Amino acid sequence: MKVYLAGPDVFLPDADAMAAEKKRLCALHGMEGVFPTDPRPDPAADAAPDLWYAIYLRNEAHIRACDALVANLTPFRGPSADAGTVYELGFMRALGRPVLGYSNDPADFTARTLRATGPEAQRNAAGRWVDAEGLALEEFGLADNLMIDGGIRAASGLLVRQAVPETARWSDLRGFEACLKALSALQGNG
Amino acid sequence: MKVYLAGPDVFLPDADAMAAEKKRLCALHGMEGVFPTDPRPDPAADAAPDLWYAIYLRNEAHIRACDALVANLTPFRGPSADAGTVYELGFMRALGRPVLGYSNDPADFTARTLRATGPEAQRNAAGRWVDAEGLALEEFGLADNLMIDGGIRAASGLLVRQAVPETARWSDLRGFEACLKALSALQGNG
Repeated sequence: MKVYLAGPDVFLPDADAMAAEKKRLCALHGMEGVFPTDPRPDPAADAAPDLWYAIYLRNEAHIRACDALVANLTPFRGPSADAGTVYELGFMRALGRPVLGYSNDPADFTARTLRATGPEAQRNAAGRWVDAEGLALEEFGLADNLMIDGGIRAASGLLVRQAVPETARWSDLRGFEACLKALSALQGNG
Repeated sequence: MKVYLAGPDVFLPDADAMAAEKKRLCALHGMEGVFPTDPRPDPAADAAPDLWYAIYLRNEAHIRACDALVANLTPFRGPSADAGTVYELGFMRALGRPVLGYSNDPADFTARTLRATGPEAQRNAAGRWVDAEGLALEEFGLADNLMIDGGIRAASGLLVRQAVPETARWSDLRGFEACLKALSALQGNG
């Protein structure tokens, strides 16, 4: 089984080392990890006029060629997960294949959003949190926007939320390993 | 043709009015707009134990029943678009149907991310922007993470970026209308 390794890990200074470590853990569980920056012959990507579009096409081809997706959903430069990762999560869910994810931040999405919106957020007449522009906050006790938690649940996946030391925010892979174990069990039952 | 109206518009204080206005514009172009909060009989959603999960399942069912998606990609509480909207964009792209989007913020994603990361971001030895934790920024001159711009391009869609007065950030629908026109043309050529 090929597992697409979605996440902002591609932006890490040691992205290649992270790719190697995730692939090693996949192999331990009898799976093959596919990192977004892995080379992949793809006629459309090879012919793309722009580097960024070649990257897009190659990532899409990687996802289509994988059997499942495990996403690093640790909040990235805001209350939510990395946008590219979220796009890929929705993409794989629509293909009907298993999606799982982990976040190295256990905080509630509402609490995290309130930290981002700052003191101008307030409760409206109905008692709901709204930001300075009047837009409502989600208050469901979830890890992120309900489409993320919901997509993983609909796929019978696992969404791990755990606290890690701040310095291990981008390196701790216990949640990732828990996803691999859950994926193994899911496939065994499937 | 049914068009799914993705966006953080659902969080607006006047979300119902926005839904009505977007549907009116769709009708002008011979299309039927479907807003995420529209009622929809769905056995799984009706049986869901949690409100948030019922919402998820209903949104997914709406998307599957639509022929195209137009997303409000205006940056939402951070450098990127709303996470739920991005998930839905990837979902619809994977279904192989047209996706288009508009942003009422013309700024480059890199510039916007630099505003979010603050003065701790710096150029590394290779000349690339990295944040305080050493994670790289995308520098492609795009509207958002390359998966968003790329998905729309791969679908032959349109991504409108335009400046609007700050007070019209969540109400200006010129970009939305441009998407509807582009979608009409796309279908005419299809």
